[in-house]
Amino acid sequence: MKLTKEQQQEIKELQSQEFKTKRVTAPELEKILFEAIPILDHGFIRVIDYMGDDTSIVQAARVSYGKGTKKVSTDSGLIKYLMRHWHSTPFEMCEIKYHVKLPIFIARQWIRHRTANVNEYSARYSILDKEFYLPSTEHLAAQSKNNRQGRGNIIKGEQAKKVLNLLKKDAEQTYDNYEMMLNERYDGSVIDEKETGLARELARMNLTLNTYTQWYWKTDLLNLMNFLRLRADHHAQYEIRAYADVMLDTLKRWTPITYEAFMDYRVGGTEVSAKGKIIIQKFIRGEKVNAEESGLSKREWNELMEAFNLKDKQI
Amino acid sequence: MKLTKEQQQEIKELQSQEFKTKRVTAPELEKILFEAIPILDHGFIRVIDYMGDDTSIVQAARVSYGKGTKKVSTDSGLIKYLMRHWHSTPFEMCEIKYHVKLPIFIARQWIRHRTANVNEYSARYSILDKEFYLPSTEHLAAQSKNNRQGRGNIIKGEQAKKVLNLLKKDAEQTYDNYEMMLNERYDGSVIDEKETGLARELARMNLTLNTYTQWYWKTDLLNLMNFLRLRADHHAQYEIRAYADVMLDTLKRWTPITYEAFMDYRVGGTEVSAKGKIIIQKFIRGEKVNAEESGLSKREWNELMEAFNLKDKQI
Amino acid sequence: MKLTKEQQQEIKELQSQEFKTKRVTAPELEKILFEAIPILDHGFIRVIDYMGDDTSIVQAARVSYGKGTKKVSTDSGLIKYLMRHWHSTPFEMCEIKYHVKLPIFIARQWIRHRTANVNEYSARYSILDKEFYLPSTEHLAAQSKNNRQGRGNIIKGEQAKKVLNLLKKDAEQTYDNYEMMLNERYDGSVIDEKETGLARELARMNLTLNTYTQWYWKTDLLNLMNFLRLRADHHAQYEIRAYADVMLDTLKRWTPITYEAFMDYRVGGTEVSAKGKIIIQKFIRGEKVNAEESGLSKREWNELMEAFNLKDKQI
Amino acid sequence: MKLTKEQQQEIKELQSQEFKTKRVTAPELEKILFEAIPILDHGFIRVIDYMGDDTSIVQAARVSYGKGTKKVSTDSGLIKYLMRHWHSTPFEMCEIKYHVKLPIFIARQWIRHRTANVNEYSARYSILDKEFYLPSTEHLAAQSKNNRQGRGNIIKGEQAKKVLNLLKKDAEQTYDNYEMMLNERYDGSVIDEKETGLARELARMNLTLNTYTQWYWKTDLLNLMNFLRLRADHHAQYEIRAYADVMLDTLKRWTPITYEAFMDYRVGGTEVSAKGKIIIQKFIRGEKVNAEESGLSKREWNELMEAFNLKDKQI
Repeated sequence: MKLTKEQQQEIKELQSQEFKTKRVTAPELEKILFEAIPILDHGFIRVIDYMGDDTSIVQAARVSYGKGTKKVSTDSGLIKYLMRHWHSTPFEMCEIKYHVKLPIFIARQWIRHRTANVNEYSARYSILDKEFYLPSTEHLAAQSKNNRQGRGNIIKGEQAKKVLNLLKKDAEQTYDNYEMMLNERYDGSVIDEKETGLARELARMNLTLNTYTQWYWKTDLLNLMNFLRLRADHHAQYEIRAYADVMLDTLKRWTPITYEAFMDYRVGGTEVSAKGKIIIQKFIRGEKVNAEESGLSKREWNELMEAFNLKDKQI
Repeated sequence: MKLTKEQQQEIKELQSQEFKTKRVTAPELEKILFEAIPILDHGFIRVIDYMGDDTSIVQAARVSYGKGTKKVSTDSGLIKYLMRHWHSTPFEMCEIKYHVKLPIFIARQWIRHRTANVNEYSARYSILDKEFYLPSTEHLAAQSKNNRQGRGNIIKGEQAKKVLNLLKKDAEQTYDNYEMMLNERYDGSVIDEKETGLARELARMNLTLNTYTQWYWKTDLLNLMNFLRLRADHHAQYEIRAYADVMLDTLKRWTPITYEAFMDYRVGGTEVSAKGKIIIQKFIRGEKVNAEESGLSKREWNELMEAFNLKDKQI
Repeated sequence: MKLTKEQQQEIKELQSQEFKTKRVTAPELEKILFEAIPILDHGFIRVIDYMGDDTSIVQAARVSYGKGTKKVSTDSGLIKYLMRHWHSTPFEMCEIKYHVKLPIFIARQWIRHRTANVNEYSARYSILDKEFYLPSTEHLAAQSKNNRQGRGNIIKGEQAKKVLNLLKKDAEQTYDNYEMMLNERYDGSVIDEKETGLARELARMNLTLNTYTQWYWKTDLLNLMNFLRLRADHHAQYEIRAYADVMLDTLKRWTPITYEAFMDYRVGGTEVSAKGKIIIQKFIRGEKVNAEESGLSKREWNELMEAFNLKDKQI
Repeated sequence: MKLTKEQQQEIKELQSQEFKTKRVTAPELEKILFEAIPILDHGFIRVIDYMGDDTSIVQAARVSYGKGTKKVSTDSGLIKYLMRHWHSTPFEMCEIKYHVKLPIFIARQWIRHRTANVNEYSARYSILDKEFYLPSTEHLAAQSKNNRQGRGNIIKGEQAKKVLNLLKKDAEQTYDNYEMMLNERYDGSVIDEKETGLARELARMNLTLNTYTQWYWKTDLLNLMNFLRLRADHHAQYEIRAYADVMLDTLKRWTPITYEAFMDYRVGGTEVSAKGKIIIQKFIRGEKVNAEESGLSKREWNELMEAFNLKDKQI
């Protein structure tokens, strides 16, 4: 990540500003507000703004349940209860806004979460930065043999070099030709005064999917957790998980009680089907159960054994 | 509106709190934060929290358009441009949260705006306040003769008295019977120690639609304007317009530039159909046009004449 | 439920129509298309239109996963897999539309599901039917002692009669006064030719919350299941569950494979938190665990024991 | 567009199927159901499924307005009225599903319309087709001089050749290297048996943004019109307009009355601000108005003159 001096200066200024407000604030989150946290080779994420904190969730829940709630539950107990029983609306009462720089192929995954607000840098209007994602060697993985949608072993040695060379060379070449077609360089200088450049909205099609873009992305706490549940999961592609992991940390700073409940009930939790419950009950009663007679498919059986760490029972 | 002493005290405390933040603030809105602004006979609206201001819209638009934008447009010019061309996403970058007390029949209209977050007081869980809306005499209107969905002349004299009496008596009686069925009064006291009350989720069905409820309602600036465009309009039912009018004032305090553009392009503006444009052009060229040959229906013709204040041409 | 002769005739005509289409059809659902299935005392639900069936889900998933999918999985296995792993988008490819007649207090619960399309009968525009919900005696329950949001024992004898009388009398009286204020009866006849009636948008506020309304409600299969998961649950209020139960049957007719997976993974399934998983593992290994040292709250402990039917371990 | 023989066969089979249904059908749309309509050089659009027609809109509106509506308005008059007054919910009662093949940079624009359901071909899971968009010579435009987000003159001669060569060469080379890194060709054949290929989710990042992807895209009629209003507009990028134009034709086949109203009020219509209305009124009264004293910015003035085709008054 190379921030320009101008950008660094702007961030410094934003961070030094201090306003008075009657609104609730999240002091731990304020500490990192506006800061550009580096992710991957050129990406970053910045918390730009937020609304509410743990008490806003409690406040909204208490409007729903009336006076009675206050007596019977602490804030922490109430938030846990809401999380456990999938009460969604109180978590929608908090809002957060990020500024994210990320490779286009990751942006395409990200945007599938529709319940959010987005303003992306427009390559119809402006020229994209000459920055593209190249995996570091420890993330250069082969296709998984048993999971069509996952990674296998790390690629090493000559093959790794070859792959990285190809990625680098192709990205640079397509970017150079992008400038050539535009007849303009990123800094605004014209290449050949006698020619007119191709329309930006067309030239951009020559860029590779690892080119970086950036956007403002705003969502509420409920939908942030929906995003993190999928994208901080070990099934998620490493490159988006790198962003999700940093966002998990911002969640902890923002709404620490909600974060705890989220880690316990969502991230660390599991679901058990009606059939799965019967198997677990038999195990507890000490009955013999085997995969064949369980009524579960092999895949389901293994997923259940894995969820409860019963590895000796996997098939 | 009768706030309890407890509520008045809570509002005072909220208003006296002062935090430091690096986030942008809207000083004019801060002045009325948490304040309960009275609406109708027992309702109110309070701004509870907000995120962003006019500069947040500009900031988001400039992420989209890149460096070029800054040079060519002022903040105000940019916001006007965005409003005029229906650019929606930058306006979604601001968020506001209200606490509203309102009659149930108005809540049912309001909730039809789906792109918002809501936590409503639950009558399954708690007992509703003994408060119901009774129109003031200047709003007691007869059914309109020519608009099936509107009001006509004000009802006066004996008939007005009769109507108000019926509304009052029925609301009070159904509320008394609600308490009777619950075997419990609003203050928590039991009516007959020997009996058990009906479930709250059932007893509430005896209440009339003018009973007051309350909720937290949170939305983004774009959807707030969509709401206000419909509900601050003179076609809207008076009772919801009373809320919308107060919200218009909070919009002005929050994002004054956006407010100006909204009043000019949306509230004060009009739409002209393809056929309507031809009529207007003919008028400008001084040609004779009459309703019959215009290709417009009578209704369309009158709506167009009304929009441009050409009353002499209405039929 | 009293359908007018006119309505009965219209339904007969709709049911006798037969068109040719290239679209997929759901034969079991076609059998009950347009039929008004009675619910509660005056309510009903009708399936009015639908799009897609189980194969539409499979088709969408296979677009995502490409050619490879077809070889490795049957339709049924694929749908189960999607359900188990919370893949949501393929289930959004099917759509269904209902016509529902329901009491207003239930409509207010229902409308909280925002991801749906709704057109409701407008009491600003037309006069509501003289129909209100009165619980049958076996559903007349007392307030639960231990669940602030639930029902306890059935109320019987004199108290039951008293409650039903109050509900009936208040609903009838407020409706009669509604007509009086309107100066018009439901059949359109004017009450007093010398007077003008109160505006409909005002008069409706005198009605009680058990008055019936009706609407068209359209949603996709994913959101239908989200609705049913909450509203066909035993924690849901009986009156909305009555609708959800009938809708479950329409789901079975429409997409039988999805229905099976939904019953297994969602309705019959349970969630276990990170802490809960440790408890279950200890039980399976035959270790002693007690509530106090479990790290769970009493409430969590009991919910876990109940989910796995370990009643002897509840506290 | 090259459909494989397998695909052509599948389409034939789908088109020859004939089911009986009680649902409303749109005969003109049935005629082209499943057909792949070519767009750009390799893209296509297919209508895959639909629900409802013009009568569904009318039916929903009449539920809202009750019995009265039927007498006072024809179907066509009612649909026009709804469109003119921005009544949105009745148009949400119809649903359509498309299968689209389109270049990735266009997919990125398209997906910004959030109120739709999408299943896209996953390049994490499968290998993308070797197909990329190359503009035809009549669409190879220079950057506009006065509109940062638009196209200017057509590029011709040597420069055109050069641009097309660069686009072609870069797309082919990056695709070849994509296969090389995957160690697998699109047809599934392995390149070097001794090596393992890079994970698909990584290799895809080497592709250029003009590579074709495909998806199923489903939306309701209201949101389809919102999409078409923006994307069939002359300000839209040509490549997405090419899709929108074909979709406009499917709209006409599906709901012809709605299509007419849409063309008149939305596509052909214009908006006039409060200030703009005053100018138009002055023109009609024959008063002198000039841009400077109008209270409009130059840009606004010109947009207003253009909307009403008053070209002589532009500045």
